[in-house]
Amino acid sequence: MKKNCIVAQSGGPTAAINASLAGIIAAAKEDDSFDKIYGSINGIQGVIRKAFLEFSTRDDAFLSALAKTPAMYLGSCRFRLPTAEEDPSVYEKIFSVFDEYDVGAFFYIGGNDSMDTVAKLAAYGEKIGSEVRICGCPKTIDNDLVETDHTPGFGSAAKYVANTVREIAYDTYIYDVNSVTIVEIMGRDAGWLTAASALARTKNSPAPHLIYLPELPFDKDAFIEKVRALLPLYRNVIVCVSEGIRAADGSYFSATQAVEDKFGHAQLSGVGHYLEYYVKEQLSVKVRSIELNVLQRCAGHITSKADLDEALLLGRATVAHASAGETAFMTCLNRVSDDPYKCEIASVPVDKVANMAKPVPRSMISENGDDVTEEMIRYLKPLIAGEVPIAYENGVCDYLPVEHLL
Amino acid sequence: MKKNCIVAQSGGPTAAINASLAGIIAAAKEDDSFDKIYGSINGIQGVIRKAFLEFSTRDDAFLSALAKTPAMYLGSCRFRLPTAEEDPSVYEKIFSVFDEYDVGAFFYIGGNDSMDTVAKLAAYGEKIGSEVRICGCPKTIDNDLVETDHTPGFGSAAKYVANTVREIAYDTYIYDVNSVTIVEIMGRDAGWLTAASALARTKNSPAPHLIYLPELPFDKDAFIEKVRALLPLYRNVIVCVSEGIRAADGSYFSATQAVEDKFGHAQLSGVGHYLEYYVKEQLSVKVRSIELNVLQRCAGHITSKADLDEALLLGRATVAHASAGETAFMTCLNRVSDDPYKCEIASVPVDKVANMAKPVPRSMISENGDDVTEEMIRYLKPLIAGEVPIAYENGVCDYLPVEHLL
Repeated sequence: MKKNCIVAQSGGPTAAINASLAGIIAAAKEDDSFDKIYGSINGIQGVIRKAFLEFSTRDDAFLSALAKTPAMYLGSCRFRLPTAEEDPSVYEKIFSVFDEYDVGAFFYIGGNDSMDTVAKLAAYGEKIGSEVRICGCPKTIDNDLVETDHTPGFGSAAKYVANTVREIAYDTYIYDVNSVTIVEIMGRDAGWLTAASALARTKNSPAPHLIYLPELPFDKDAFIEKVRALLPLYRNVIVCVSEGIRAADGSYFSATQAVEDKFGHAQLSGVGHYLEYYVKEQLSVKVRSIELNVLQRCAGHITSKADLDEALLLGRATVAHASAGETAFMTCLNRVSDDPYKCEIASVPVDKVANMAKPVPRSMISENGDDVTEEMIRYLKPLIAGEVPIAYENGVCDYLPVEHLL
Repeated sequence: MKKNCIVAQSGGPTAAINASLAGIIAAAKEDDSFDKIYGSINGIQGVIRKAFLEFSTRDDAFLSALAKTPAMYLGSCRFRLPTAEEDPSVYEKIFSVFDEYDVGAFFYIGGNDSMDTVAKLAAYGEKIGSEVRICGCPKTIDNDLVETDHTPGFGSAAKYVANTVREIAYDTYIYDVNSVTIVEIMGRDAGWLTAASALARTKNSPAPHLIYLPELPFDKDAFIEKVRALLPLYRNVIVCVSEGIRAADGSYFSATQAVEDKFGHAQLSGVGHYLEYYVKEQLSVKVRSIELNVLQRCAGHITSKADLDEALLLGRATVAHASAGETAFMTCLNRVSDDPYKCEIASVPVDKVANMAKPVPRSMISENGDDVTEEMIRYLKPLIAGEVPIAYENGVCDYLPVEHLL
């Protein structure tokens, strides 16, 4: 007997998360286990509020446009479920909605925090003997989920970073004066996305000259000496830093701090501005800092085909695993080879993923800590491969309207 | 008898200036007036230093790749010529190089400052009876040159701004909490590029909700009241501001100022951070500021076909006008109609352009000063039309190497 299913999205936006949503909808439409497909608005909170869209009748044209629309078609939430011991009422509510809507499976697309929700719901469901399959589908631009080779959304963000850093390099090369450019890249605790800046390099374009990840302590004095040594060699030195780099004592660098040192407390911005300020003071050269900001996670106009294809397949696989009776899992990617690139899709118990984080291993960071290794390049390269043609209308990307979020 | 020619680039980079260079090279190769085509490295300073590349033998594949490579293939300079009265020696030097290299025409691609160089060289040439034709070809993302409907480089920057603001909007829509996003856009004195953010709007995506250009004084208290009123209507309010907005007394807003007010002097950043700080303080909502920074001028991966096509044609026309004996001119675009869009290429005396600036006219700004009018939309729309397919290698834009600048 057919059951309905609910899909929701959670955490930060990516350029690929709607491809996973499209994959889930497409597979659920084809699957004999499922009848109606509900999309929950604003993550698990939409289930609690019964704020649903119905996807069952959407056609292929919709799904194709959906897969190329960045951010999150269903909206997000930053809601962390209490434990069932702390507050059973929220679980009772959610499972009563599952009953009311005759739900056979709940699909949650997200990162570590979202997998915590999946794990908690699955544990509660098991306790009460629920047959609703609780399923996780991975995404995050941070690429810090364990038990998967990489995460959908990361490849497109990495492609944006690589292309943008190359373009920033071209922009700096034009002037015949010494300059330092600091590019601040997302990733508070994991340096994967900052590492992707290395893909900007070509035989003739050496930038970025320095890359600093949050996995190692950042020594600002050693950094200044490095830049001082590079300036006569390259004239325009480009430095990519993770927003989360910390000093040996674990403290963050921020413009706040730069200002605080002299003037007291101010809430301004991050490490990019801090280093801009610091390099200017120490080396008296032209310095610019550029924060890639949200553009790196939602640039639907430049996505990785490899990424969007995998995001869609992971969405489909999540439905297939649920349909086969599996629950309390997250679908994942296991890399078979780098070149030719091949990944296989599998699943892992979600409690092995929830709340865990995968930092960049030491072997992918250069010995002196200011670059990545060839192993990292081999790992990254296939993830940004291929381009996705986008529909434009009047010169602007023609994304699906999201009026239900406004 | 054939003469040689020199081409150079000056001012800030754009995604289209190399298309003008490609147009000049292509036309000069075909033109009976010209033999060797020298590219001067780093603007007029390359002439003084005799730092030349030779383009005469480059093939169509090179020119096609050149047209799609952003920034400036020949590098730039920010060198302002002294007047011939102040320092005749620099003019003597330049014209002696023209003689030495048997130059019949000098082509300078740039903005207002570059046209000042063209005007001064032309005046000096006339005084000494030189037959070298001194020719300007326009470019600037600021779109602030007079005597031309618009400038190459602007359309691509405008397209980047429109697409990016739409993507930022999609990024903000996903959360179910009140937020204000400030997007800081280039254009210190002219608001054309900030105005282009209006092209991000669709029937279903109202952002940006407010647009502030530097042509009108910015009233920060009226702004706060406007945001306060919009928040309950839209939840996520997106504001696009020119980096150059000023208070009624002419003073700029900067984070420096925000910090100075309380803590003394600090060199940090611009109006985006200032407003982030101010809105947070006044309205206690989630606020983010995003500075589009150099990305908006050098994003070769998302350019306007209309822009690149016109840049190339203006380059070609600059050679044609020179070949016909004209000197002391800048080529320009005269709009014939908005829809269907049609511009004709002509030329103007360069001294009518040099050192002049074209602000956004009052009729293109809404009455209350926080938006643009339909007249502006009609003007902007055709300039971002069409996409330019880019070659990628390993997922990254495959631009021409610029090892001669490194």
